[in-house]
Amino acid sequence: MALRVGVIGGGQLARMMVPAAVELGLDIRVLAEGPGMSAAIAATAEGDYHDVDTVLAFARDVDVVTFDHEHVPQDVLRALVDAGVAVRPGPEPLAVAQDKITMRTRLSELGLPVPDWAAVQDPDELQAFLDDHGGRAVVKTARGGYDGKGVRVVSDPADVSDWFIAVAEAGGGQALLVEELVPFTRELAQSVARRPSGEVVAWPLVETVQRDGVCAEVFAPAPDSAGRIADMAEDIAVRIATELGVTGVLAVELFQTDDERILINELAMRPHNTGHWTIDGATTSQFEQHLRAVLDLPLGATGTHAPAAVMINVLGGPADGDLAARYPGALEAFPEAKYHFYGKAPRPGRKIGHVTVVGDDVDDVTYRARAAAAHFDD
Amino acid sequence: MALRVGVIGGGQLARMMVPAAVELGLDIRVLAEGPGMSAAIAATAEGDYHDVDTVLAFARDVDVVTFDHEHVPQDVLRALVDAGVAVRPGPEPLAVAQDKITMRTRLSELGLPVPDWAAVQDPDELQAFLDDHGGRAVVKTARGGYDGKGVRVVSDPADVSDWFIAVAEAGGGQALLVEELVPFTRELAQSVARRPSGEVVAWPLVETVQRDGVCAEVFAPAPDSAGRIADMAEDIAVRIATELGVTGVLAVELFQTDDERILINELAMRPHNTGHWTIDGATTSQFEQHLRAVLDLPLGATGTHAPAAVMINVLGGPADGDLAARYPGALEAFPEAKYHFYGKAPRPGRKIGHVTVVGDDVDDVTYRARAAAAHFDD
Repeated sequence: MALRVGVIGGGQLARMMVPAAVELGLDIRVLAEGPGMSAAIAATAEGDYHDVDTVLAFARDVDVVTFDHEHVPQDVLRALVDAGVAVRPGPEPLAVAQDKITMRTRLSELGLPVPDWAAVQDPDELQAFLDDHGGRAVVKTARGGYDGKGVRVVSDPADVSDWFIAVAEAGGGQALLVEELVPFTRELAQSVARRPSGEVVAWPLVETVQRDGVCAEVFAPAPDSAGRIADMAEDIAVRIATELGVTGVLAVELFQTDDERILINELAMRPHNTGHWTIDGATTSQFEQHLRAVLDLPLGATGTHAPAAVMINVLGGPADGDLAARYPGALEAFPEAKYHFYGKAPRPGRKIGHVTVVGDDVDDVTYRARAAAAHFDD
Repeated sequence: MALRVGVIGGGQLARMMVPAAVELGLDIRVLAEGPGMSAAIAATAEGDYHDVDTVLAFARDVDVVTFDHEHVPQDVLRALVDAGVAVRPGPEPLAVAQDKITMRTRLSELGLPVPDWAAVQDPDELQAFLDDHGGRAVVKTARGGYDGKGVRVVSDPADVSDWFIAVAEAGGGQALLVEELVPFTRELAQSVARRPSGEVVAWPLVETVQRDGVCAEVFAPAPDSAGRIADMAEDIAVRIATELGVTGVLAVELFQTDDERILINELAMRPHNTGHWTIDGATTSQFEQHLRAVLDLPLGATGTHAPAAVMINVLGGPADGDLAARYPGALEAFPEAKYHFYGKAPRPGRKIGHVTVVGDDVDDVTYRARAAAAHFDD
């Protein structure tokens, strides 16, 4: 019988696990939030992942449970573990990914490079941090943020007064995370995969360009990063994966500072937008690797097909909503581009797909990837 | 709304279209013969493809119908066309693929290079062919053969007396195909794709090794084939695709003779075992290309990721049937190999998967692909 992987969540990351599972002969099953999700083709159940009974029933028929996202509550994760289900990544590492203050605390304990930060419970504490950091800082909600949501640059505690009210109402000692505004020259991302037996492999370090807090472009490998920067990034990601006991893919978003340091920005314990280029550009994609890792199978080679790969997100899509009408023009103009769409309806700002081009020259590849992706915009 | 492709037949070729469809954002739906087929993940209907009503009902909800195999009867194909369904490839080219005598007749009319052949209806006609060709020849049933079934090397008409009886009982002027035993030095295969608007693209010519009539190994590109042989093969395949009006992938199996000619052996109007290497070795796989072609979308680039790709079929699998138990050893030993399994239970001689390795040196790649695949044999 085929090995069975259960994925909680039916978004595009679950969807992109499907090709890898089909190729490798795995039986992939998705617990989707409802009908018509990106990963609908593999959905064997629909339900609320906050509900212990729903998730336990889904998990009964699989060999391992993994995730499309990091939002499954700890009580559900613990119930799975108590029922003898293999949950990968497990509740402990996921707790670090689920709460930015926990994440900063653990990384600081490990001595890893992070921006200056503090957990603040009221405007006075935030004002004190601002006073110490030039009057401006980044405030983040500890939970629930993604793609720029839950993140604000502030110069006055009043800029996040709504969040302080929510924190106070929630009680239980909750807080906001405040961080120094890092003077970065660029953003990088390092992905690794780790399996329970301890094996860890890394893909090349990539450069990422964010727009409005959303990943827009990825360059693999990161230009001018051979040597010390790449070594530091890989060491950081391997160390986090190992020390936190992550299983599956771990993506570490990094800042490169103008004094050539790197600082950890965010973590994701799942395949990540900054690794989509691996589908077309690497021997083993992050999605195949994640499946291998959570099944504790030996990990695949992470070499690249060509010197450069560039991934451009398709954000929003055509205003008339007619994505299919854009295929002929794009495919004809750039037959070498790899087009990926997630079964999502176009909507302003929404990640509905991405385009990757691989080749020998990064400038040429960048031009072609951007131009191919632009066929799907207005 | 996503473009919708309906595939008749739930075997491994339909299965391998699923990853390509998911990546490209297409809605793929399979009419499977029953439950538990290779392509079950995309099965939206189960039923008999010989039944017009079953197939018409399936076709109602898709933009185009294509195939996992060439066995859908002409009356069903014609009913689809009459109902306004886009059927690709269409009934006319499929008629050529469905009957080896029709195929030989059409290719001969086109002046394309084929072995000496005749349609024989009785033992005397076969004996006359044998007398003219050194006393030995290959006899094939006109319909229904695959993977070495329906093919016999004979030196006496009595060797196929059962087939003559069947032909006589069937009536209607049916016959057997007899062909000269071609003195070939090796077998080759040329795949192309053509879309309704006329665009045709070719992948590199490959060398194939058959064992007991079943494809066992494929080397891409075919060693020592640059220049004249490759040009001839591509010209032949492009000509067949164009003259017969094939839409989708066309694979042409060829003999290379000891006097440096090439002769057409068989045709397949669908993705083909000799093109599986394209999943891992080419910019556009034969499965993605088939989907693009049948949707009349511009075709993808057919360049390769590396100088050599070798595909080894996994035939039979472990005698104990426990395929999953073989993964750890294989994946650990050859992390660069790409493993493909079709969701089929191991059984002697059955094609249950394949392994592809790509790299710079064909000898090295061949060794690794064979050794990786051997982990799944006994």
